[in-house]
Amino acid sequence: MKSAVILLSGGLDSSTLLHYVKGKLDFQLLNALTIRYGQKHVREITCAVAQARAAGVEEHRQIDLTFFGELVAGASALTDPAVPVPALAELAPGQLDQPPTYVPNRNMLFLALAAAYAEAKGVADVFYGAQAQDRYGYWDCTVEFLNRMNAVLGLNRRQPIVLHAPFMMMRKREILKIGLDLGVNYAETWSCYRGQDKACGACPACVERRAAFDALHVTDPLSERMPDARRQTPDRRRRRKA
Amino acid sequence: MKSAVILLSGGLDSSTLLHYVKGKLDFQLLNALTIRYGQKHVREITCAVAQARAAGVEEHRQIDLTFFGELVAGASALTDPAVPVPALAELAPGQLDQPPTYVPNRNMLFLALAAAYAEAKGVADVFYGAQAQDRYGYWDCTVEFLNRMNAVLGLNRRQPIVLHAPFMMMRKREILKIGLDLGVNYAETWSCYRGQDKACGACPACVERRAAFDALHVTDPLSERMPDARRQTPDRRRRRKA
Repeated sequence: MKSAVILLSGGLDSSTLLHYVKGKLDFQLLNALTIRYGQKHVREITCAVAQARAAGVEEHRQIDLTFFGELVAGASALTDPAVPVPALAELAPGQLDQPPTYVPNRNMLFLALAAAYAEAKGVADVFYGAQAQDRYGYWDCTVEFLNRMNAVLGLNRRQPIVLHAPFMMMRKREILKIGLDLGVNYAETWSCYRGQDKACGACPACVERRAAFDALHVTDPLSERMPDARRQTPDRRRRRKA
Repeated sequence: MKSAVILLSGGLDSSTLLHYVKGKLDFQLLNALTIRYGQKHVREITCAVAQARAAGVEEHRQIDLTFFGELVAGASALTDPAVPVPALAELAPGQLDQPPTYVPNRNMLFLALAAAYAEAKGVADVFYGAQAQDRYGYWDCTVEFLNRMNAVLGLNRRQPIVLHAPFMMMRKREILKIGLDLGVNYAETWSCYRGQDKACGACPACVERRAAFDALHVTDPLSERMPDARRQTPDRRRRRKA
């Protein structure tokens, strides 16, 4: 039986990844790691718990790094109450490369924790849900980042660890398609970056999520809670239609 | 004024590093990061506080990762109460490469935190106290490790971060010499890996520390608390003398 460690946020990508690693890559013993790092959208953790249960993971560890948001105060809209989460439509082209929703060095930190956990358990394979965003990018979600992280971990002769990001080259709609085929319950995933009761429909995570569901002509089970931002803020598409 | 982030454990190496970065490398604004990770020798943190004060750091952040020891349960003598800290003399030659005192992926984790902290503060230079142990080694204290970590962080265009380990090629006696010249108060450093009131004199950290002081013909200010292991456990040297 193959074992894996999976970074599970409770969002669309990592929830799909969890079921994909089990259902398609035949890892039977899953160890999920979920990290509370001071994110505003902490409700994603409830979804992570539900997904871990649905996938029948062996162990689901939740780690409290709440201090992290304070350590990087001022540097990210995802963690700092004083930095608003922007609407994707408000971002200038120059901001798309590294938008305010970037969290300083978060992925290296989370992967370092996941690799330590895997090493202690004697597990060689660690997965995370980096994907090719349609409209913006993060340096720590790239193939180069993954390769260079693996070059570091390859130095550890005691316990080889390999990081995998099978969705790295996929758009969110492709990931969603995989998950729908696997029967993932997307009602129990959370994407919105704003820490509100309902998904805002306008932040980068909401816009990407909506675009993925729209592309597949599938209704997002969260859509009742997700207002249509196009109805709230007139954007170019709407003005074109008018 | 140049700023730096320094990983400060309160041990001999990182305490020396702190004063070296300020006194010799002319970084005036120091930000020290000290991490409680479930180590048995948590009293080193008291020393870190004293050293940070002595060096006049701008900010000294203490981070609580106490959960980490539990996350890597069974995998390290430094964190697991069930895994005894070995005496250096007890280690088989094959264990010296990666002794039981190794903590899974700890350095990547700590450097990831330090880099995140530095990035958020707009600081480019991060220092840690890796050094060339005389008798044993850790894969995450090597030049290759440092270079590959820098290859990862070099991908971040928003805020370039460079990790430095100026003691990487030095033996502990050379580091100690630097610190003595800088006036470091070694009474306020802690090395022993065993979580006792007195330094044990036999664990790898004690043996290396003693060898460094002996080589310089200097009395360790902690020596009153550090029993001479050679008097306690007859080893080969003593038998040869007899």
